[in-house]
Amino acid sequence: MRDESKDSGTSPLSPLAVAGVTLAAVKAGIRYPDRLDLVALSFAPGTTAAAVFTKNAFCAAPVTVAREHLRSCGSKPRLLLINTGNANAGTGEPGIAVARRCCDEAAAALGISSTEVLPFSTGVIGEDLPVDRLLSSLPALFAARSEQQWGAAAQGILTTDTRPKSGFREFTAGGHSYVLSGIAKGAGMLRPNMATMLAFLATDAAISEVVLDTVLHKAVESSFHRITVDGDTSTNDAVVLAATGASSDSLCDDLNSELVHAFSEALESLCLELAQSLVRDGEGASKFVEVAVSGGADEAECLAVAFTIAHSPLVKTALFAGDPNWGRLLAAIGRAGLSDLDVTGVRIQIDDLTIAENGARALDYDESAAAALMSQKELTVGVDLGRGEQRASVWTSDLSYDYVRINAEYRS
Amino acid sequence: MRDESKDSGTSPLSPLAVAGVTLAAVKAGIRYPDRLDLVALSFAPGTTAAAVFTKNAFCAAPVTVAREHLRSCGSKPRLLLINTGNANAGTGEPGIAVARRCCDEAAAALGISSTEVLPFSTGVIGEDLPVDRLLSSLPALFAARSEQQWGAAAQGILTTDTRPKSGFREFTAGGHSYVLSGIAKGAGMLRPNMATMLAFLATDAAISEVVLDTVLHKAVESSFHRITVDGDTSTNDAVVLAATGASSDSLCDDLNSELVHAFSEALESLCLELAQSLVRDGEGASKFVEVAVSGGADEAECLAVAFTIAHSPLVKTALFAGDPNWGRLLAAIGRAGLSDLDVTGVRIQIDDLTIAENGARALDYDESAAAALMSQKELTVGVDLGRGEQRASVWTSDLSYDYVRINAEYRS
Repeated sequence: MRDESKDSGTSPLSPLAVAGVTLAAVKAGIRYPDRLDLVALSFAPGTTAAAVFTKNAFCAAPVTVAREHLRSCGSKPRLLLINTGNANAGTGEPGIAVARRCCDEAAAALGISSTEVLPFSTGVIGEDLPVDRLLSSLPALFAARSEQQWGAAAQGILTTDTRPKSGFREFTAGGHSYVLSGIAKGAGMLRPNMATMLAFLATDAAISEVVLDTVLHKAVESSFHRITVDGDTSTNDAVVLAATGASSDSLCDDLNSELVHAFSEALESLCLELAQSLVRDGEGASKFVEVAVSGGADEAECLAVAFTIAHSPLVKTALFAGDPNWGRLLAAIGRAGLSDLDVTGVRIQIDDLTIAENGARALDYDESAAAALMSQKELTVGVDLGRGEQRASVWTSDLSYDYVRINAEYRS
Repeated sequence: MRDESKDSGTSPLSPLAVAGVTLAAVKAGIRYPDRLDLVALSFAPGTTAAAVFTKNAFCAAPVTVAREHLRSCGSKPRLLLINTGNANAGTGEPGIAVARRCCDEAAAALGISSTEVLPFSTGVIGEDLPVDRLLSSLPALFAARSEQQWGAAAQGILTTDTRPKSGFREFTAGGHSYVLSGIAKGAGMLRPNMATMLAFLATDAAISEVVLDTVLHKAVESSFHRITVDGDTSTNDAVVLAATGASSDSLCDDLNSELVHAFSEALESLCLELAQSLVRDGEGASKFVEVAVSGGADEAECLAVAFTIAHSPLVKTALFAGDPNWGRLLAAIGRAGLSDLDVTGVRIQIDDLTIAENGARALDYDESAAAALMSQKELTVGVDLGRGEQRASVWTSDLSYDYVRINAEYRS
């Protein structure tokens, strides 16, 4: 099932099969005809899992139910049931009841407990989930499951994304080889009506739910939590990590084991790849920008500066224009809330070119060279705060006419 | 000097003369020919003053010098010297030296101390202030001063604003009548390269610098600090309030006096009027929106929700589109960081129309009625958090194609 195409921008490598995981995607007609919009990920008995959910107080009904079920089943879910076309968000108590009913019926069909089913929805908000269409498609969905359907699942969870996002890693420990595969969707909180970010990852290693939870939170912190397009957070965001244990003899419960080190490294790398692919696919985004802040007293202040820059509409429009407008960068750094910032110690670079230092434009500043760098499709805005050894990066896009067009016209 | 025109959108009432204040504006050719770009506000001896400056760590050279001089002169400045066309920001130590030289030469010409001169600059950043052109215009500037030049001064401090902003209030205490006049500039942090917000206010009452400082901070908090267009903060922002005492017999130093109550009320009202005029004039802004949050446990959480809504690009593009996209409002409220928010208690209104409540769309929601309200030039987004008695409002604009155009093209 590997696609060896070199054009990873449009044809990413399909994930490797993961023993203990079967998948399927079917066309249930949730919102549009002839579109894969209902996806199942089934896990072998004994599979452990961990999840990170949106912190938005207005979380969608399926998020509420999934969070509750994950707890009730002892972090051992058997099925992830994902629909697109409708977010089942802003639907109040009736929305919760519908999400529960989907879990009940899926569980009955598979002979598992309702709490072993975690529901996920993404799509238009504030409209009732067309539950009959969803339920009537379950038999076909479950019948179609196989280990080889990662590509279909990656396609089936998309809404307004322009391409599927998926990837895999192989890692070894104790002479054994394992696989970690993952799929993700979301146009980087950029494009649609609160574009939901969803990611589902699975490995065939056997890792306890406590360890999974720890390494997942760490990986999400350095990947999905470090991308931003417009600062808006979806009501439906979720990342789920499962470990089937199909390729292990015994459950690993040791954070300091060779296996967990290798797994954690693979997970962080894959999460970062998937997260960056969300930013790259943000429609309206004409640029992919790393904001790399170094020289901080601690990581928190590096992140504060990086996010202030990444969220600044003035910086983002300058990026769109390819304008090396270092004054806007200075202003963003200056309002990031750092105490006692000595502005004369700050250096700003575009890629390797220093454009500002000592609180002013660099002495050998070359506007045309800076403009050439700013006009690239991918670039790094580097900020050295000059007061410590810590660093952190955030990835973002620019603010374009298309951003306004897409977000002003989405519901029409 | 009153302009009784009814078209206050384009011809605001000129401020009333304030005894003890003389003003002038001349064309110094700082950046463009034939444009009023150098302004003086002279104060009679004994005038007290207070100021609020930008909190941006990268504050401009004149801000650094003005803050220092205000302290050194015991809060009794004699001259505000304001140039447009060049912000003298991002200019490092040489910029500071130039700002000091302007103060020195102006002070020498007027026979006052350098520290009694407060400099302000607004315009393009990162370029050297053309100090010779500024200094050679000082004689003409000082010769032109009169009590009647508030209108010229309001015009002279503009950069990319489309119209001058000014206003006045009359207030009485102890049988005496007093005047408070003010001018402001800034396209709401919206339009240009970090559009500086500047406001200068003066009264003929006699009020101590300590009391002035207290009432000014309170007034700024409820006016200039509650407008936002894109969340970006200028390196040059400043608000100055002066009290000449020309119409008083004795200095008022009592925060609870009748005079200070009347003055404070007039000041808050005028600051709010000027602040709102900045938002209305934000180029690219097609709408003027009040975000009114009520039912909060405290004012801070009302402001947190109001600013999260006002800064959300998804909300702002929906406002531009006239789309009553209540899901984006729900999502913004949900990520504003309120602890234990019971979303079922939240109600959202557009003007008087309830569009969402109980965590979902209102039962009698009428999309066409909501869209009609959203398409107005001025509207109120109301949020009732349903958990307290506190309220707060913020004023903002929408995110339009013109915002992107103006900010992407400004330097070209």
